[in-house]
Amino acid sequence: MTQPAIRYELIKTCKQTGARLGIVHTPHGSFETPTFMPVGTQATVKAMSPEELKEMDAGIILSNTYHLWLRPGNDIVKEAGGLHKFMNWDRPILTDSGGFQVFSLSKFRKIEEEGVYFRNHLNGDKLFLSPEKAMEIQNDLGSDIMMAFDECPPYPATYDYMLKSVDRTTRWAKRCKEAHGRSEEQGLFGIIQGGEYEELRRRSAEALVELDFPGYAIGGLSVGEPKDVMNRVLDFTAPLMPENKPRYLMGVGSPDSLIDGAIRGIDMFDCVLPTRIARNGTLMTSEGRMVIKNAKFARDFRPIDENCDCYTCKNYTRAYVRHLLRTEETFGLRLTSYHNLRFLIKLMENVRQAIREDRLGDFKDEFFEKYGYNLPDAKNF
Amino acid sequence: MTQPAIRYELIKTCKQTGARLGIVHTPHGSFETPTFMPVGTQATVKAMSPEELKEMDAGIILSNTYHLWLRPGNDIVKEAGGLHKFMNWDRPILTDSGGFQVFSLSKFRKIEEEGVYFRNHLNGDKLFLSPEKAMEIQNDLGSDIMMAFDECPPYPATYDYMLKSVDRTTRWAKRCKEAHGRSEEQGLFGIIQGGEYEELRRRSAEALVELDFPGYAIGGLSVGEPKDVMNRVLDFTAPLMPENKPRYLMGVGSPDSLIDGAIRGIDMFDCVLPTRIARNGTLMTSEGRMVIKNAKFARDFRPIDENCDCYTCKNYTRAYVRHLLRTEETFGLRLTSYHNLRFLIKLMENVRQAIREDRLGDFKDEFFEKYGYNLPDAKNF
Ligand SMILES: [Zn+2]
Ligand SMILES: [Zn+2]
Repeated sequence: MTQPAIRYELIKTCKQTGARLGIVHTPHGSFETPTFMPVGTQATVKAMSPEELKEMDAGIILSNTYHLWLRPGNDIVKEAGGLHKFMNWDRPILTDSGGFQVFSLSKFRKIEEEGVYFRNHLNGDKLFLSPEKAMEIQNDLGSDIMMAFDECPPYPATYDYMLKSVDRTTRWAKRCKEAHGRSEEQGLFGIIQGGEYEELRRRSAEALVELDFPGYAIGGLSVGEPKDVMNRVLDFTAPLMPENKPRYLMGVGSPDSLIDGAIRGIDMFDCVLPTRIARNGTLMTSEGRMVIKNAKFARDFRPIDENCDCYTCKNYTRAYVRHLLRTEETFGLRLTSYHNLRFLIKLMENVRQAIREDRLGDFKDEFFEKYGYNLPDAKNF
Repeated sequence: MTQPAIRYELIKTCKQTGARLGIVHTPHGSFETPTFMPVGTQATVKAMSPEELKEMDAGIILSNTYHLWLRPGNDIVKEAGGLHKFMNWDRPILTDSGGFQVFSLSKFRKIEEEGVYFRNHLNGDKLFLSPEKAMEIQNDLGSDIMMAFDECPPYPATYDYMLKSVDRTTRWAKRCKEAHGRSEEQGLFGIIQGGEYEELRRRSAEALVELDFPGYAIGGLSVGEPKDVMNRVLDFTAPLMPENKPRYLMGVGSPDSLIDGAIRGIDMFDCVLPTRIARNGTLMTSEGRMVIKNAKFARDFRPIDENCDCYTCKNYTRAYVRHLLRTEETFGLRLTSYHNLRFLIKLMENVRQAIREDRLGDFKDEFFEKYGYNLPDAKNF
């Protein structure tokens, strides 16, 4: 029997919280979990070079099937030798299935059993995405971890709608598995849906576990629901997931949710949040959010975060970063994006260290207090 | 007697052309000439980091007094410890005087003997720039080479207008010298004006040489005149400049003009051209201009320029760079800006080597032929 493309190694469980410390092995090397994955939507993590991502210790990045399908086209990426070679990144890559973008970006979509008919967000052309097509594109891209094509239901959705959607997502997952052409080189993850409904999450998880994927994701969260709802869903969903496989919570990247997710047994996270807010000048620091364009930083010659070890904080001041953002210089976007990404990657290093030392609960309390999450008007990130 | 801030060392003269190989010594180290200076208008060379500029062997960069005066303000740069420290660049910096921007960017300017009244290009506020003010700002910035505040006359201008302008620029240069507060740490260059008029260039040069600046620039060229006019003006102006001081041709950055300028005895050049056209996807290569967004590069997996040693060409393909520019990813701007800057810096390395070997004329012929400058429809860059 051949080695599976993706293998999860559980190192230890935090005695205080149950959080998992592990390693995910892929065809392009291994990374420790829990981990945060920077998002490189269009075959580039916005404003970052591959060397910078390595320097900040990114273990794996995510890229978007939908966007690469449209531009430059999966055929071109395949001809380039795959996504790793195309974008000059030799560590692991996870690609999503395109499902989320079809449901979030495009208008006039029509869901049928065969797949989804929709118009693309660039020029309105008619397109069709199906489980088979999503596999074909991801096979061309050559990512280490592929995602099954799922339906991303609206939030909120009724129980009846969600039931039908969950069953369709299961049937689609089965078709994905059958269509997946390179299972020894690329691992395909199933996506558990079911919204806030415990019964449906269970139904989804059990059916997908039956199909025996090398890893599982939780979809349909971080779509606008309150944080306590997300945590409650994680509380009853994570235990349904196999212990010997990686668990990926999709689209989550605020510091509190990363810690709360790890505590509930999640291993992998991704989100555009750190780079998106960075471009607008919002920075995550060990003492909470910082809006760097604020006038009070005009003559502030300290680093963004005195506890940060990143390139930006080692070399530049708040005054300089503020100046670059005010004058719309792209180097400013580089400096803020670098800092926010490193902040989350370092946060996960600290989370892993806390798991090693069985004190992730204490770490959470300290972090939340310092970041300002315990204030009455606490922000989401 | 103290050491002057700026000192020029002539290494040798090309027997074939008369071009000068030299070294300019500054308080922040030395650089070889002829050299091309990347422009960092707002305390950053667009899309580049200081480390990248060093990696591509930039010996000196230019920054703009007018822009830094408005944002973040010269007082803030001074408080940061000067421009070098503010932007994290420890090699030489040249700052212009603000004169060019006053004449090119702002509306409603009124030139008086005292200085220029105008409205700034950001919000229309009334401002006043004078020789004394230009010195104060540049003293605050702490650049290695400062430029005298001159009038940049329109092109074309009548002899009578230009005569008055030249004499005013001379009077202003004298006031600059008197107002310059840190002549041991910063070298002040005079700017020779006079348009296309040989008599006025002579008048300007003789008056400024009398004032004994540590270096001289030629202003008022590359303002729309044909190339042969520029070369003719250089032919009669360069010999008026002291042999033992650096000669700087302002605002010139097309490959042909760099070579033609070096042949006429120019040592320093600057221009926004390489970074500006890079952001639009126009690349300079050893075989001429390349418009990278062109469809023919969609599946072209060769580097931009197979003869280039830059980061972009070592790691990325034409297809990838094209993809990044089409999808408006800032990493694309970084890759194209890096390449174009390195192309000009390498060009000047080749020019210096040709001077060493007394064959700059041959080098020019070969370069012009290969770049396409000998074609009937040759582009400017
Ligand atoms: Zn930092
Ligand atoms: Zn190159």
